[in-house]
Amino acid sequence: MPKLRVHNFSVSLDGYAAGTDQGPDHPLGRGGHRLHQWVFTTPTFRKMFEPEVAGSAPPSSTLDEAFAAAGEVGVGATIMGRNMFGHQRGPWLDESWRGWWGDNPPYHHPVLVMTHHPRPSIEMAGGTTFHFVTDDVESVLQQAFDLADGQDVRLGGGVSTVRQYLQAGLIDEMHLAFAPVLLGCGERLFDNLDGPVGYQCVELVSSPTAAHARFTRASTGQ
Amino acid sequence: MPKLRVHNFSVSLDGYAAGTDQGPDHPLGRGGHRLHQWVFTTPTFRKMFEPEVAGSAPPSSTLDEAFAAAGEVGVGATIMGRNMFGHQRGPWLDESWRGWWGDNPPYHHPVLVMTHHPRPSIEMAGGTTFHFVTDDVESVLQQAFDLADGQDVRLGGGVSTVRQYLQAGLIDEMHLAFAPVLLGCGERLFDNLDGPVGYQCVELVSSPTAAHARFTRASTGQ
Repeated sequence: MPKLRVHNFSVSLDGYAAGTDQGPDHPLGRGGHRLHQWVFTTPTFRKMFEPEVAGSAPPSSTLDEAFAAAGEVGVGATIMGRNMFGHQRGPWLDESWRGWWGDNPPYHHPVLVMTHHPRPSIEMAGGTTFHFVTDDVESVLQQAFDLADGQDVRLGGGVSTVRQYLQAGLIDEMHLAFAPVLLGCGERLFDNLDGPVGYQCVELVSSPTAAHARFTRASTGQ
Repeated sequence: MPKLRVHNFSVSLDGYAAGTDQGPDHPLGRGGHRLHQWVFTTPTFRKMFEPEVAGSAPPSSTLDEAFAAAGEVGVGATIMGRNMFGHQRGPWLDESWRGWWGDNPPYHHPVLVMTHHPRPSIEMAGGTTFHFVTDDVESVLQQAFDLADGQDVRLGGGVSTVRQYLQAGLIDEMHLAFAPVLLGCGERLFDNLDGPVGYQCVELVSSPTAAHARFTRASTGQ
């Protein structure tokens, strides 16, 4: 059975997955880039983006690279929230915005962007097509499975989108990377979940730059 | 200079340091015991308590043991909140309660119990004396340093007591053990801190049962 998977989703040790004041100047929120240092230096990330995006950080650990690379395997479609696609809010006043990732986004498969505001699909170079979907989480997931053609679906983010799928219990596997950072404020991944979360941690390992935890849906109530 | 140190303070990966409904039946809150599995199996913990408390868990990792043991070194006094001393709330109606730890508590030095309700000190076997203090965090810390006689002071818990000292920026070193558990609800350590926390992570390592993070006060504003 194809799965819904979360990979390389960075959270600070005090529980924030994005900083405050997300917007054009701070796409990840204030201080939010600090959560992602571990992935910026991985070969997988560097291959996807221009070297200037990755910066001139020292080479990453093999552990970080193994997790970064695992997120790219066996994925046939991606779901993301509208805020991950861009910084515009409300109706699409500027349809020239085609995402953060340039002309050849690093997806190379269908990407379903969840939004309250319809917009025609955008076919990009390299096999990525952005589809704008206004349906509920279950329906979007079904559409993503259909487009993935037997492969898994990856849930990209942002924070509130992952939280919605977590609340609905629709995530099959989740890899969180806890960055050795205390952000102090921002947007929490684990919030308003109201009671035991039906996931169990099946692996916990650390590099100096991230504690990686993998979760699957709990087989028994905890 | 003697320091105020936090050690072996367990937090779930979703940020909770105690479960809900703390009380006589659930001293650590519902599910709260799951946060401490990593320490229950360490030789340090087993030496302190009766084998039946430690349970029949498999032997711990050497990493977990190293962290557990570090908390016992160079400490001349302990500060704890009243809820860590016992489950009573409000005035001390039952002064026969002398803590969770039996006649010979595993402190062997002065323990300052923060409370709104004065009570005479209790001298226990083995060198532990419980002093009940009604002062503010700074004053209690000064009293603890005086009693520690040149050694460090350890901040034991519970959650709200550590949070108060964190808010006041009075903690010098803090070791948090992130348990591979999602509790879903409970009491957060990092809450109402209102902005960047002035601590930096100086070490991040994991056993299969805990991601250990050590923090010191940040040398520069972050």
